[in-house]
Amino acid sequence: MSQAPAPSGYLACGWNAGIKDHSLDFGCIHSSRPASAAAVFTRSHFPGNPVIVGREHIQDGKLQTIVVNSKNANVATGQAGLDLARNMCKWTGEALNVDPAMILPSSTGVIGRLPPADRLEAACRSLPDKLHSPDFNSFSRAIMTTDAFPKVRGYELHSGIAVLGMAKGAGMIEPNMATMLSYIVTDATMEAADLNRLLKFCVNRSFNRISVDSDTSTSDTVVIMANGAAGKPAFKFPVGLESLWSEQTLETILGDPLPQTGEKPDQVERSNPWPDHIGDEELEFVRAVLRTCIYLSREIVRDGEGASRFFEVLVVGARSQEAAYKVGRSLINSPLVKTAIHGSDPNWGRIIMAIGKVFDEAIRPDHVKIYAGDQLLFQGAGKDVHPDLEDLKAHFQQPEVKIKVDLDMGTRFERFWASDLTSDYVRLNADYTT
Amino acid sequence: MSQAPAPSGYLACGWNAGIKDHSLDFGCIHSSRPASAAAVFTRSHFPGNPVIVGREHIQDGKLQTIVVNSKNANVATGQAGLDLARNMCKWTGEALNVDPAMILPSSTGVIGRLPPADRLEAACRSLPDKLHSPDFNSFSRAIMTTDAFPKVRGYELHSGIAVLGMAKGAGMIEPNMATMLSYIVTDATMEAADLNRLLKFCVNRSFNRISVDSDTSTSDTVVIMANGAAGKPAFKFPVGLESLWSEQTLETILGDPLPQTGEKPDQVERSNPWPDHIGDEELEFVRAVLRTCIYLSREIVRDGEGASRFFEVLVVGARSQEAAYKVGRSLINSPLVKTAIHGSDPNWGRIIMAIGKVFDEAIRPDHVKIYAGDQLLFQGAGKDVHPDLEDLKAHFQQPEVKIKVDLDMGTRFERFWASDLTSDYVRLNADYTT
Repeated sequence: MSQAPAPSGYLACGWNAGIKDHSLDFGCIHSSRPASAAAVFTRSHFPGNPVIVGREHIQDGKLQTIVVNSKNANVATGQAGLDLARNMCKWTGEALNVDPAMILPSSTGVIGRLPPADRLEAACRSLPDKLHSPDFNSFSRAIMTTDAFPKVRGYELHSGIAVLGMAKGAGMIEPNMATMLSYIVTDATMEAADLNRLLKFCVNRSFNRISVDSDTSTSDTVVIMANGAAGKPAFKFPVGLESLWSEQTLETILGDPLPQTGEKPDQVERSNPWPDHIGDEELEFVRAVLRTCIYLSREIVRDGEGASRFFEVLVVGARSQEAAYKVGRSLINSPLVKTAIHGSDPNWGRIIMAIGKVFDEAIRPDHVKIYAGDQLLFQGAGKDVHPDLEDLKAHFQQPEVKIKVDLDMGTRFERFWASDLTSDYVRLNADYTT
Repeated sequence: MSQAPAPSGYLACGWNAGIKDHSLDFGCIHSSRPASAAAVFTRSHFPGNPVIVGREHIQDGKLQTIVVNSKNANVATGQAGLDLARNMCKWTGEALNVDPAMILPSSTGVIGRLPPADRLEAACRSLPDKLHSPDFNSFSRAIMTTDAFPKVRGYELHSGIAVLGMAKGAGMIEPNMATMLSYIVTDATMEAADLNRLLKFCVNRSFNRISVDSDTSTSDTVVIMANGAAGKPAFKFPVGLESLWSEQTLETILGDPLPQTGEKPDQVERSNPWPDHIGDEELEFVRAVLRTCIYLSREIVRDGEGASRFFEVLVVGARSQEAAYKVGRSLINSPLVKTAIHGSDPNWGRIIMAIGKVFDEAIRPDHVKIYAGDQLLFQGAGKDVHPDLEDLKAHFQQPEVKIKVDLDMGTRFERFWASDLTSDYVRLNADYTT
């Protein structure tokens, strides 16, 4: 954390506002000037009240302040809860002299109980006293529920621009669904429309490619703010860049392995199909935001409820992005695949099963190849393979398991990260009661 | 079991053929004459070799014999495995003087290992010595893997026609996916095309409406044979009857509660929209087959891996069958719903979450009502409800939990049955290794 560079022009804080107990439960990020902003929210039909308000406030692509409480999600709390989410913005706006429509509220925690309005009001009104430094450290802890550790990632670009991301993941206060909240701030300059395309591009390669348990929270939120305080020319993220996504592009953007927190990203290597009209600095910026999102996503999985093992699924050779997506999702959400990895059980038949149940995509069973690490497990339905089960078991005992599926039908691919399914997950979600 | 009437004209047997250990592992059902037949198989892209052969042999709508081994699924065993599935029919045909194309093979057990051909050949060739009575009791035990109990259900109609069903469910030999096999035999007369429609009608209201863990076996098979030995006129199941399905029809067909094994079904009550050209005897027959399928399905769930609690999900008020199906599936497969029920945790927010994540169906959040048993938990996103959590906890402690979701958008509905998610499930599937 100490190495992560704070972007210019932001203050942040986190403290205990007494929402439920004595742990940090209230935080704020505040830009000294209005910032371009974009956000992606849960697709749930029952979004939390802060999500409803946040959707309204992000419409114009401008935010100045993010205000968050943990320990109560303010979901399924009726009209009173919706009023409260709006009031959080009103109180914060009055305290910081910011238009309430420039404020995004977030809440995470138990569902179906109205949060204590008096404590939230007192917290919002005390923000001027609390916001005196870029204390992202306290903020990243205040948004945690039962996360085991805070999740922070930052990059400083060669130009001095900084990108900093923070997230919370799969934790419970009381038995409850896990909620993913993530906030990314930068002092780069970017129009809201470009920022919006960039965020979607990155989220679809990170937060939307992970699974702890296949369930979707009512409060999931990813927000990015770019306040331009570094004083650099505006970056673009042109329409259509998204569709250039390919295996080659992934490697171009990411490099491998990911650098450590605070390290400068590797020198950019240009290669097709990354278009010429994207400058080196822009590419470096995209890369920093994408790497931040991927880092935070992987940390969320690693800290998943009851998780003991982490696995990556790479689906290649798909005829469409959607086919690769569906096959990967089937694998990372299969209880039998997840339990096999938990138990280091070299039961590769379950991987075949999980591919086999993607009914609505064409699969050529005779062409599918499956690998665990470097080991070929299966090379088509009609052909014999005799994988070394001891080798496979050893691979499944690694803290990070890699499964690759080659569908041999095209060139599209998707990469996913997931946690295993453990007795601890069941205990955490079943044996504690509300 | 002793009460279940055996239909005329069938022999059955089950014994230990030494496939793996000393438990019953080989069985056969044999009709004295060719029977009309229909089957539904797994939709997996990687079907087991017996499924591949079974699909070929059911094409003409005629079967005389079903031959099954447990302890080895003969899946992902290459060309040698496919040859073996064909040879099971050849050896059985030679032994019983039946055309091999009139024989349906089934196998269940471990994946990726070739079954012992010599033992299977010896077992098939000894069938004439073993098939001397309608010993469905031994057959129903020989198809078990780690099922805790055999699953058998029979009805005798007023006309003397008998319907008898047997199934195996979620068991493991070694850590492996669960496989569902089900066989229904009757001495009614029915053309194969009618039988096929009837079977699909029933399977879509029973075996296709259950979930233990959301994974789909490579070997799932449901077969029905009707040999006409009762000497009655042929029953019809007209084209289009399926689409008359509605809530009223369900109650008309089923009655409630289900009668016990061997009991005669209740007197048929005629009501719309069951069409007039379906006679009372036909309706009684459809009802017996459907009840058999529902009974066996529920028993499979009750005997699910690690299952400690059974729950029913009824989705009503849907604008289409598909919408009702998707919402119900989301609920019965949600790990957080399943663990809440396991822990008797009155965390009704998870039910909202599971409905909320059915992204590709329109839902009116303000109109959705959710009930547990008779208790209203939720009456629309904007409205307050304060369910009695103690009452809810008490309901979740019942061996059979009932959840009802009213989407308030139409008249279609679906009913599902599922087991909870337990630490025992994880242990069974993770901690034993191959």
